[in-house]
Amino acid sequence: MSTESAQSITPQPDDTARPISGQTVLIGTVGDPITQIRAPELMNAWFAKNGIDAVWLPFHATAESFPTLVNGFRHIRNLAGFTVTVPHKPAAYRLVDRLTERARRVGAVNVVRPVENDLLLGDIVDGEGFIRGLRARGHDPHGANVWLVGAGGAGAAIAMALVDAGIARIAISDIDAKRAAELVSRIDAIGGPVKAAAGAPPTRGLDIAINATPLGMKPDDPLPFDPTSLDRRTLVAEVIMKPPRTALLEAAAERGSPTHEGRHMLDQQVQAYVDFFGLAKLARPAA
Amino acid sequence: MSTESAQSITPQPDDTARPISGQTVLIGTVGDPITQIRAPELMNAWFAKNGIDAVWLPFHATAESFPTLVNGFRHIRNLAGFTVTVPHKPAAYRLVDRLTERARRVGAVNVVRPVENDLLLGDIVDGEGFIRGLRARGHDPHGANVWLVGAGGAGAAIAMALVDAGIARIAISDIDAKRAAELVSRIDAIGGPVKAAAGAPPTRGLDIAINATPLGMKPDDPLPFDPTSLDRRTLVAEVIMKPPRTALLEAAAERGSPTHEGRHMLDQQVQAYVDFFGLAKLARPAA
Repeated sequence: MSTESAQSITPQPDDTARPISGQTVLIGTVGDPITQIRAPELMNAWFAKNGIDAVWLPFHATAESFPTLVNGFRHIRNLAGFTVTVPHKPAAYRLVDRLTERARRVGAVNVVRPVENDLLLGDIVDGEGFIRGLRARGHDPHGANVWLVGAGGAGAAIAMALVDAGIARIAISDIDAKRAAELVSRIDAIGGPVKAAAGAPPTRGLDIAINATPLGMKPDDPLPFDPTSLDRRTLVAEVIMKPPRTALLEAAAERGSPTHEGRHMLDQQVQAYVDFFGLAKLARPAA
Repeated sequence: MSTESAQSITPQPDDTARPISGQTVLIGTVGDPITQIRAPELMNAWFAKNGIDAVWLPFHATAESFPTLVNGFRHIRNLAGFTVTVPHKPAAYRLVDRLTERARRVGAVNVVRPVENDLLLGDIVDGEGFIRGLRARGHDPHGANVWLVGAGGAGAAIAMALVDAGIARIAISDIDAKRAAELVSRIDAIGGPVKAAAGAPPTRGLDIAINATPLGMKPDDPLPFDPTSLDRRTLVAEVIMKPPRTALLEAAAERGSPTHEGRHMLDQQVQAYVDFFGLAKLARPAA
């Protein structure tokens, strides 16, 4: 008790800049590097707007130390969970105790939260954000014929979410043909009605063509595919946010095709985070 | 790369409530319970006032899980360190890799920061805050004849800081006589000129009498000692902050003795934290 009294600290009158107290709930993103992440700005603005006593933080940890950090996180009782970005998604998939069905299908985890008995549950919400983004812009993927370019982490998450959203058909290309074939196999393993094939599809008859590769982040990147080879009516969609208008989208728009920017996925991801972490329940009690 | 683009998030225009970004440095207090701590309010106000891109957080962890948490903390590269409160001070002393001389003397640690090679350095700044607080109110303890009541964590830290500040003599009482005797032994082991003795001293001739017990936090607590038995000139000092004016201070003031409130120690502890963690170096770069 005497040590407690020596440790406690008296608040000052001008104490309003960051209303974090001993009751504030912690949540954050783990990555390496970490300085580029935008989740703290976006989610803390959401917390402020909704009167939620929580704070979204950047956690910088290397791949080597990630398992030790996750063990530590199991024991922070006021941690609502964490999201993981490069390079921790595969490790997060292995380290969590429980997986949602869609995380198992995708083979990756980007959100982790504690469940009972200090166990950790992993899910992946990247794909859900993409689908919500499409719908928010009036593009329902139900029944669509889709071409997905890029079968990495983002591509796999989007592919599985498209399957769940009821597309009719998907062709998956990747510079690594084996990776594309593996993702097709995983879709086939679900046993649903979606027809999946590896490799570039016939360029005619597509409803949506999606870039899920990093090509377009740098000014001198080649296009991930040629949008002028598609039907003019095919929606050309991006996962890249910076720049907001990639060379791919500009080329598609120039010849009159509809386009869909990467930011629409991410705007929708806030709600996916809110749902997974139960953030709406953390409303700040009346002072 | 494609997974990174899917994880990043676009900031919104109203994004100013809590200016935490991927570049923000983390620091915090670990305790159980944690909701009562005031360091986040106090230190975040200091960060805001001084343009420091850091955020002070509450970390709630039980004694059982504290070692695992500390291992995790070793690997958060944007963590400037952490302070520990009840019940983690003894464990922190055992778990850190290096100790300052004064932490070794006190036998406890309340501040921990990373040094090279993921090693952790422990120090204790409770006592320094007390000495700074005395001096800030015009009470230089140099050459003083002191009575310290309470030889727990706070008492030990204050005793060692008083010795470093050049007091002449100290008597140490505790409801646990063995604990008082052990603290006296530790002061003797330093080999300095301070005369230390266990048990209550002659009540006359004292310069400062200090309550470092929790007695006075609750309304019906007995007084830790009778201030009316001391010389009227003896300074009666508290470590308790809530209430700011304890029954001990009220009784001392009533008969005309000078008093020194617990909050003076804690107001000064901000600077001790700033120094130990190197917080002034974290000034936010121009946007």
